[in-house]
Amino acid sequence: MISDKMSKLLERSAAMSAMYTESARMKEQYGVENVYDFGMGNPNLAAPDSIREVSIKVLNETDPWYLHHYMPNNGFVEAREKIANSLNRRFGENYGVDNIMMCVGAAGGINCLLKVLMDPGQEILTFAPYFGEYDRYADNVNCTLKAVPPNLPTFQPDPVELAKCVTEKTKAVLINNPNNPTGVVYSAETLKAIAEVLEAKEKEFGHAIYLISDEPYRELVFDGVKVPWMPDFYKNTIVAYSFSKSLSLPGDRIGYLALGSDVEDFQNIIAAVAVATRIMGFINAPGLQQLVCAELCEELVDVSFYDRNRERLYNALIEYGYECVKPEGAFYMFLKTPTEDDKDFVNKAKEHRILVTAGSGFGCPGYVRIAYCVAPKTIEGALPGFKALMEYYKNK
Amino acid sequence: MISDKMSKLLERSAAMSAMYTESARMKEQYGVENVYDFGMGNPNLAAPDSIREVSIKVLNETDPWYLHHYMPNNGFVEAREKIANSLNRRFGENYGVDNIMMCVGAAGGINCLLKVLMDPGQEILTFAPYFGEYDRYADNVNCTLKAVPPNLPTFQPDPVELAKCVTEKTKAVLINNPNNPTGVVYSAETLKAIAEVLEAKEKEFGHAIYLISDEPYRELVFDGVKVPWMPDFYKNTIVAYSFSKSLSLPGDRIGYLALGSDVEDFQNIIAAVAVATRIMGFINAPGLQQLVCAELCEELVDVSFYDRNRERLYNALIEYGYECVKPEGAFYMFLKTPTEDDKDFVNKAKEHRILVTAGSGFGCPGYVRIAYCVAPKTIEGALPGFKALMEYYKNK
Repeated sequence: MISDKMSKLLERSAAMSAMYTESARMKEQYGVENVYDFGMGNPNLAAPDSIREVSIKVLNETDPWYLHHYMPNNGFVEAREKIANSLNRRFGENYGVDNIMMCVGAAGGINCLLKVLMDPGQEILTFAPYFGEYDRYADNVNCTLKAVPPNLPTFQPDPVELAKCVTEKTKAVLINNPNNPTGVVYSAETLKAIAEVLEAKEKEFGHAIYLISDEPYRELVFDGVKVPWMPDFYKNTIVAYSFSKSLSLPGDRIGYLALGSDVEDFQNIIAAVAVATRIMGFINAPGLQQLVCAELCEELVDVSFYDRNRERLYNALIEYGYECVKPEGAFYMFLKTPTEDDKDFVNKAKEHRILVTAGSGFGCPGYVRIAYCVAPKTIEGALPGFKALMEYYKNK
Repeated sequence: MISDKMSKLLERSAAMSAMYTESARMKEQYGVENVYDFGMGNPNLAAPDSIREVSIKVLNETDPWYLHHYMPNNGFVEAREKIANSLNRRFGENYGVDNIMMCVGAAGGINCLLKVLMDPGQEILTFAPYFGEYDRYADNVNCTLKAVPPNLPTFQPDPVELAKCVTEKTKAVLINNPNNPTGVVYSAETLKAIAEVLEAKEKEFGHAIYLISDEPYRELVFDGVKVPWMPDFYKNTIVAYSFSKSLSLPGDRIGYLALGSDVEDFQNIIAAVAVATRIMGFINAPGLQQLVCAELCEELVDVSFYDRNRERLYNALIEYGYECVKPEGAFYMFLKTPTEDDKDFVNKAKEHRILVTAGSGFGCPGYVRIAYCVAPKTIEGALPGFKALMEYYKNK
């Protein structure tokens, strides 16, 4: 008696649920330390001590009525001001309070934004491989997500392919930079080229095409790489940010949307996001977390932890004969499977008590995603299995 | 360039925004203490000290990784267990962890639930007057909200009228008890009669009709009244609860859904709510708030504060000649306007620096809602104005 629509979504998510169940069963059977679970992007690092300290400070020093009351739907003004100032300092923006809208994680923010921008039947473009939930976000607003085919082997979006995919119905382009699942950082050159295509298409079709830049991994970068600031390249950009990864608090549900005052229809967008936030049931981002994260918006977990995991895992996998783009950001590696059938690889890996996610779920079969936000011993424990898997497929 | 759909919603909410702007302008012009703002259900009471104390305890005593990580989408198991135990104790239920799903306030929970239950084109029934956002919640899932006409003068839902409104398309009935905007508590007799109608209609149409009982004001009751427990009357009930009012923390966004294991399609509903929570961008209710509110789920703000406001305002208004059902719950009063044109009354009231909300927005013109969750001096300051308004309309 659940809806037909939801029944179908439940089937599609059954694979994910099955993975959880399988993972739990294996951990029960073999012991947690003997199962190498790279399935989920749940950061292994704890939130920095400053989160606890500032949370307690805010709880002790803020009038309790004020702290817990309904603030404006777009968030506490002082939180938005701190974040605006930080972005101004870091990216040379000229943001004020109105340019920042606090939201329930990047996922909450993007859903509100799509509600604001999209009419039923319109199209959202993204680049494969992409975070699989984007399909559902599009469906929530009765739109379709169209993926520009993956540009192998670099996974840098291909502007020529993008140009072929944009149609009159394209209202938004959704990018994720650094990328989940590849760990690739879209370069300034790539972003500039994307901007040029979209500007030309805006002119051709006579309406704005909004670029939503989903950036929860912005600060999780390695080798001195910087993630270029998309609004520098393309005016109609809206940045969706989350503190889930930079401060390791995904369960807190806190992030923001940032957009320049020159974004087309700016005033209506910010007014409408406030309405969308309300009517979708978010109402506002959790108040305490707004104040805490705004205070700590330039803090960062110890990224060198992920970097060590990356180096160890990447070097070993390459040594075993795997092909993989060396990730420059986030905490994912997108491994080419030594068979075209990535699902077969996922199943075979389970025999070595290794859990990874099939690339098919990211619109890119023939690959698996390894979330290496795990304990170093998980990587060490898994390496013999990865080696054996490669040998198995080589000799098959 | 925002969507057509959102443009229309923005127009509809323009009245609300205008009220805010007007309120801010008036407070600027006359001074905050000289504007009597009964517009919003933002509790005047501060959260109890125990919220701060338990929050600090949880922050100090919980492993920070655990506290801030992604827990299951339906929430921390220990939070759900505490709430289940409390409901078992209080209402004789036999709930376990699976029967409770933590959500982002009642509004977040209801939106997830509608996503789970409703297919496009189906109908949700409610009883006028009703919380105006319900229309938008229905629209979010491409369904329509149909309101059973108000049953004057008691505002107890009329089961005979309900029976006339249920059609084959009716998949859910949404009630709000105690009621916003009337403050009326639906009686056991009313709920039993509603249950009988719905059971008969389930048989007639051969499918479940889910009753969603939206109960953020459950504990805000006066004169020793108790809110009957809807699952006692009707099997296919899902209770949506929020801590926003009982603990005065609306900005924290924390609540839960509760449903019995005998609710039709129970297993699919709980699995699908977890999926809906994820794909709509909520992911999970904020973690810290889950643990804090579960610990304090039987605490309550000082309801006598609202009771004193209620008595003072109600008695005065009746003395001036107004008609009004004496509210038994929540912190709203639904006043019959001395003119049929409630919007005219709202405008006239502004001349006395009194802000109230037109009943039209609740599907019930000819009335205004007074949110008396305000400082007592706001009530004292407003009384001469209410008196003058009655005299004006009498002599008109």
